Amino acid sequence: MSNKAHNLLGTNAARQQLKSVVERVERLEEEKKAIADDIREVYGEAKANGFDTKILRQIIKLRKLDLAERQEQDAVRDLYMHALGMLPDFVPDGGEG
Amino acid sequence: MSNKAHNLLGTNAARQQLKSVVERVERLEEEKKAIADDIREVYGEAKANGFDTKILRQIIKLRKLDLAERQEQDAVRDLYMHALGMLPDFVPDGGEG
Repeated sequence: MSNKAHNLLGTNAARQQLKSVVERVERLEEEKKAIADDIREVYGEAKANGFDTKILRQIIKLRKLDLAERQEQDAVRDLYMHALGMLPDFVPDGGEG
Repeated sequence: MSNKAHNLLGTNAARQQLKSVVERVERLEEEKKAIADDIREVYGEAKANGFDTKILRQIIKLRKLDLAERQEQDAVRDLYMHALGMLPDFVPDGGEG
């Protein structure tokens, strides 16, 4: 711990540096929060207009993937769902679905 | 599901509305990500200057609380730590140290 800045906090310079770090992070976090609020607002508006926001969030995630990645995810998911009997053609005879 | 906007997606207006929602969210998410990167950069710089970023993050959380909240949290935490023998004056005889 010997050469850490917090061992120099007796100096004004180090205290100022610490203060600056904390204030910069806090300002940025406020900006980030404001944007998160804006996003929530857009979803709220979309919901009021009759869109399903759960699906919108899924779509926005999917749009971050390219076609190949999306297809691979679909394939793996189908594989797992088949294995778990979650897809109609795998419902066992007399199953609950 | 009858009056949901996604049942009107045959219309250009609804498609445009959907496109607008998605694009606005995506733009805002990009801005949010840029700010998150800035925050990471500030912490990286602080670390390079010898500050302990784990403690910085704790401090920034603590600064969101007022003094009374902070004191209450401290009191409850001490209570739990006492109960668990985590504080020196509660180390049982022959404890592991």
